Amino acid sequence: MSLLVRTAPARAEAWRLAFAKAAPGLDVRIWPECGDPADITALLTWQPPPDLLALYPNLQVVFSEGAGVDQFLALGLPDTMPLVRIVDPALTDMMVEYGVWATLDLHRQMPAYRRAQAAHRWKGLPPCLAADRRVGVLGLGVLGRALLHRLHLFGFPCAGWSRSPHALDGVTCFAGRDALAPFLARTDILICLLPLTDDTRFLLSAPAFAALPRGAALVNCGRGGHVHEDDLLAALADGQLSHAILDVAGQEPLPESHPFWTHPGITLTPHIASDTVPASAARQIVENLDRLRRGECPSGLVDRGRGY
Amino acid sequence: MSLLVRTAPARAEAWRLAFAKAAPGLDVRIWPECGDPADITALLTWQPPPDLLALYPNLQVVFSEGAGVDQFLALGLPDTMPLVRIVDPALTDMMVEYGVWATLDLHRQMPAYRRAQAAHRWKGLPPCLAADRRVGVLGLGVLGRALLHRLHLFGFPCAGWSRSPHALDGVTCFAGRDALAPFLARTDILICLLPLTDDTRFLLSAPAFAALPRGAALVNCGRGGHVHEDDLLAALADGQLSHAILDVAGQEPLPESHPFWTHPGITLTPHIASDTVPASAARQIVENLDRLRRGECPSGLVDRGRGY
Ligand SMILES: NC(=O)c1ccc[n+]([C@@H]2O[C@H](COP(=O)([O-])OP(=O)(O)OC[C@H]3O[C@@H](n4cnc5c(N)ncnc54)[C@H](OP(=O)(O)O)[C@@H]3O)[C@@H](O)[C@H]2O)c1
Ligand SMILES: NC(=O)c1ccc[n+]([C@@H]2O[C@H](COP(=O)([O-])OP(=O)(O)OC[C@H]3O[C@@H](n4cnc5c(N)ncnc54)[C@H](OP(=O)(O)O)[C@@H]3O)[C@@H](O)[C@H]2O)c1
Repeated sequence: MSLLVRTAPARAEAWRLAFAKAAPGLDVRIWPECGDPADITALLTWQPPPDLLALYPNLQVVFSEGAGVDQFLALGLPDTMPLVRIVDPALTDMMVEYGVWATLDLHRQMPAYRRAQAAHRWKGLPPCLAADRRVGVLGLGVLGRALLHRLHLFGFPCAGWSRSPHALDGVTCFAGRDALAPFLARTDILICLLPLTDDTRFLLSAPAFAALPRGAALVNCGRGGHVHEDDLLAALADGQLSHAILDVAGQEPLPESHPFWTHPGITLTPHIASDTVPASAARQIVENLDRLRRGECPSGLVDRGRGY
Repeated sequence: MSLLVRTAPARAEAWRLAFAKAAPGLDVRIWPECGDPADITALLTWQPPPDLLALYPNLQVVFSEGAGVDQFLALGLPDTMPLVRIVDPALTDMMVEYGVWATLDLHRQMPAYRRAQAAHRWKGLPPCLAADRRVGVLGLGVLGRALLHRLHLFGFPCAGWSRSPHALDGVTCFAGRDALAPFLARTDILICLLPLTDDTRFLLSAPAFAALPRGAALVNCGRGGHVHEDDLLAALADGQLSHAILDVAGQEPLPESHPFWTHPGITLTPHIASDTVPASAARQIVENLDRLRRGECPSGLVDRGRGY
């Protein structure tokens, strides 16, 4: 039973230390050193090699280094091989920070105030109370729920959208495709926290933008593949959308010449909304290895049929 | 008994409507129409005319249109004339929004990410957990307490500084001049929510900046008079401070040619951190007029000896 940590070199040492602390007896190998590949029964990685199964013939479980797993879905992993995502308070907290920051940045018209500073213009804009700013979150998973729970405290009318029905205190819950249009129609600031699946790819395209109130704003913390980039540019050009804060892009790193870089209506961050914190996440992985050994279901197990 | 509303013309109508709703029977006059000045017994204003007492000879009470009252202190109002500030949930909520936004903007290194976007650079910076980012608030009044209460939820180690001792859940409280240096020494993000008085003017100058950890950041939501502007520029130039978010300035509107406008280490907003919402604040004023009529102490009464 060996766990191979196959991550960015910059993070490898943090993982080594975290596992040494969380499970001193665990045989952890840090890629590219892996010893005999036939020893590897568990793999932790963010960007899986396409020939994963050939490389590690005795693999029994795959851990995504993050909350998303879209990059694992086309690898042809056997249905019986558990694919497990990170569910970790540190990762959740970071996403809540980012989501609250982005919501307040838009709610308090900070993009306009940044333009005002550049123009040496000292002039307040008419304020809008939180009670009059409707926030909506696409995705009521671990991250969407935590974010709504915090946003609710600010007094924003909050709603969320998911595949299956949910009930959340202080949040109007919408479920399923038919509920998407009414959900969007009541949303001034739309935050995407969906997983990328065949069902959600390009969900944020012209029809969705048209269903929002005029001048709504978008925050994408999901995946670049959720957004139809040309449709987004068109919605911004036309004023249907007032601003977009994008943490993810269709191609990452975003190409040098991409129009998003210089667009006054787009704020970009380089996929940093949240991050896995090894010191904290290693505990979940160690616990899951124990559960698997006991024949129990790991926490954060991905439903491969749904794709998340 | 007549209340004169002497505010910016843009806000006058909102006040008129708010008082008509909160106290239909109240005789409210909207400046510049005021009828016989001798009728005026109560004044609501933000920028008081210097000859206030001569203009309204029968004045009995003065209401500041905001939370601050520094602009009233040199008017020579008789000690027996109550000076009352706004204490209103809508104003408090807006300040909490701004303070959380500013804290998260700094905590999540958004100034650096904005520079990265301008340089078309897609590269995450090493993250810092909330648990490792110490936030400190100068002033534990209505606004400072509310802000700390919300910031605490994000997991920041929180502290506050005031004149008299306070005890707040989850907040390390410091009181008095001697406690200022230790308070600053443990503060990575410093937020000023002090009133401007003789004691607090230029509190944010070289010695205070030097007492902070190297690379700390400043948010000023108090008054421009709290900051020694040349010392701030020097602390930014030297790296002692990494960034400042300023909602207030020594001279407002900030002069066109002021160096703050173009400074890469300064984010400016035009005194919009919080605002009085007439619809909500009128209720407090009406209630206070009733209290005064009954000989009771109004809520938000300023202690003229302390200056706040
Ligand atoms: N930018 C970043 O730094 C970053 C970091 C971490 C995660 N993320 C992104 O955030 C996503 C969400 O994370 P999470 O932990 O909250 O995921 P999760 O717990 O798996 O929740 C996913 C949510 O999306 C809903 N959903 C999925 N497919 C849907 C569909 N077709 N229609 C409607 N709703 C649908 C699910 O509905 P049900 O509740 O009905 O199942 C669920 O509420 C990740 O997949 C990843 O893409 C981004
Ligand atoms: N930028 C904006 O949009 C905006 C909007 C509203 C207000 N403000 C500013 O925010 C300020 C604070 O408002 P607030 O409602 O919280 O005021 P407050 O309720 O009067 O509280 C003032 C706080 O400052 C402390 N303090 C005063 N002098 C001090 C000194 N010399 N040393 C240490 N602590 C001292 C007080 O200590 P004690 O508790 O010991 O008395 C108290 O905790 C206002 O005065 C105004 O300047 C700005």
